[in-house]
Amino acid sequence: MIEPFFVGLDVGGTTMKAGVVDDAGCPIASVSLPTEAHRGQEFGLERMCESIRQAIAAANVRLAQIAAIGVATPGTMDIPAGVILDPPNLKPWRNVPVRDHVQRAFGLPTAFQNDANAAAFGEYWAGAGKEVHSMVLFTLGTGIGGGIIIGDMIVQGEHSHGAELGHQKIEMTNPRQCGCGRWGCLEAYASATSVVKRAREVLAQGGVRSALSARSEQLTSRDIFDAAAAGDAVADKLVDDTAFYLAVGATNMMHTIDPDMIVYAGGMVAAGDNFLQRIRSHINRLAFPVPAEKTIVCYARLGSDAGFIGAAACGRQLHYQLHYQLHGQLRG
Amino acid sequence: MIEPFFVGLDVGGTTMKAGVVDDAGCPIASVSLPTEAHRGQEFGLERMCESIRQAIAAANVRLAQIAAIGVATPGTMDIPAGVILDPPNLKPWRNVPVRDHVQRAFGLPTAFQNDANAAAFGEYWAGAGKEVHSMVLFTLGTGIGGGIIIGDMIVQGEHSHGAELGHQKIEMTNPRQCGCGRWGCLEAYASATSVVKRAREVLAQGGVRSALSARSEQLTSRDIFDAAAAGDAVADKLVDDTAFYLAVGATNMMHTIDPDMIVYAGGMVAAGDNFLQRIRSHINRLAFPVPAEKTIVCYARLGSDAGFIGAAACGRQLHYQLHYQLHGQLRG
Repeated sequence: MIEPFFVGLDVGGTTMKAGVVDDAGCPIASVSLPTEAHRGQEFGLERMCESIRQAIAAANVRLAQIAAIGVATPGTMDIPAGVILDPPNLKPWRNVPVRDHVQRAFGLPTAFQNDANAAAFGEYWAGAGKEVHSMVLFTLGTGIGGGIIIGDMIVQGEHSHGAELGHQKIEMTNPRQCGCGRWGCLEAYASATSVVKRAREVLAQGGVRSALSARSEQLTSRDIFDAAAAGDAVADKLVDDTAFYLAVGATNMMHTIDPDMIVYAGGMVAAGDNFLQRIRSHINRLAFPVPAEKTIVCYARLGSDAGFIGAAACGRQLHYQLHYQLHGQLRG
Repeated sequence: MIEPFFVGLDVGGTTMKAGVVDDAGCPIASVSLPTEAHRGQEFGLERMCESIRQAIAAANVRLAQIAAIGVATPGTMDIPAGVILDPPNLKPWRNVPVRDHVQRAFGLPTAFQNDANAAAFGEYWAGAGKEVHSMVLFTLGTGIGGGIIIGDMIVQGEHSHGAELGHQKIEMTNPRQCGCGRWGCLEAYASATSVVKRAREVLAQGGVRSALSARSEQLTSRDIFDAAAAGDAVADKLVDDTAFYLAVGATNMMHTIDPDMIVYAGGMVAAGDNFLQRIRSHINRLAFPVPAEKTIVCYARLGSDAGFIGAAACGRQLHYQLHYQLHGQLRG
């Protein structure tokens, strides 16, 4: 364990996870508590502090050994202000000054970041992206989120809307409506929710022979990937289309960011290597030869720890920025 | 005029333009020479040096007052190596070591960059983006190029494929083929060439009443924009579709980079404010409310000087990097 230590907190709609991470990105201990957003934001802020305290206790370190804290939450948010604005997954919170509250509670430098950006930063620091200089991460779940890292910098955007990778438009002629209310977004094609939706549409056509028909109402994206692996032709087509849509999203990132690595995180990672191979083979047709050949395409490695590890990485980055600034000031 | 001075050279398929720029981004003098790529790359390298010499002479400064040089060329290229690889617009050049040649010829630190990236950096330093922290620039011409600048950093990509903004995929169902040979690229919809192509398709349908019919074979994108301004309904639809496609491309940048500013450069800038308003109004429907409201959408200001000014900016950045590095070494 390399000192100093950092605490990362990843606040989700259902649970929040806090953990202590050492200076090399190794998690020492973590705890999960229910978020219970419905109990209000005062309760939520206190629960954040409680989870941080419990993580420190679980790691068996003293507060004095912690150099900084990082907190990651879902949006909408104002990242530089450290405030959650109007989060659809944390109702009824509004304008919650997360960073300043946590900073005051512990008297430690505290960073604030979008949860998907933090997860990408975690994978970059201590996971799949450990050896690379730049990385684009797609989180595949109910929606599609993402994070863009270029040389230790999170591309968070000027209005806290950076790396909303699920909301790039990939279709104009016959666009599907997205959960965001707009049309033609990648998320409307390739999220876990969208895979299920597309499956239901196919099954509803009638005359379709598929093992999926039996599950119809309770269908999950996992069922579809499992059926495809078992040789179901309908499921196979759905999975291959999903790989194609994700390849379109990846190609767009290769032609704009041109990162060292494209990483997929979230539940669909369970689909395994075959799915990754399909994405790659679509990329080979869609992208320019050089990035198609050279960009590493892989799965995330940190699982559900990526968020708090990345939040801790944000705290760590803040710590070293302050450290060098202070150093400069003392000299100057 | 603020010393030191920098020379920027922008190599194009037809002409190359070299200019001397002061430390504040003010161009002092510039010269243009024909590229004559067909005469071979040895000739081309000598012509680059000649244009730099002529620019220095025209600016009436001494070589000793020049701190660094920047050279921008079209791709394909290896930016870190300073080499043009296999440029479609500079046949028959292959594997041309531009940076090292110019560096040796003048004995000055020399930067090398993609021409569209350099133009974006020029607008960022001394043009439309002077007051902002980040910017995405689209160059609209025969193709669509681009540049992404985030806080003084050009997003050139790990494989020199950053900001190939014309090659983001925006259509899957019924994709047009792009000049790059692939399908569904923004460039296949919104470049000047594509506007003309779409116009020809509409006119070929027959029964169409439009002033454009008379020009048919010699049609240019300028004709289409002019006819739209004069009230021609067919031309108006073509222009509005173009604005829509560009808005899709802009929205994708707002949802990934989330810059302070989106800038359009190139011939279509002549379409004026009305065209910009149309792009904006499509963005308002396509993008999230916050970036749609806050992102500045405007035209470039430096015209055809952006390339050499941006190339000079790359030279300047290299100069200050070397300066501070050296400074640090002397201290350390």
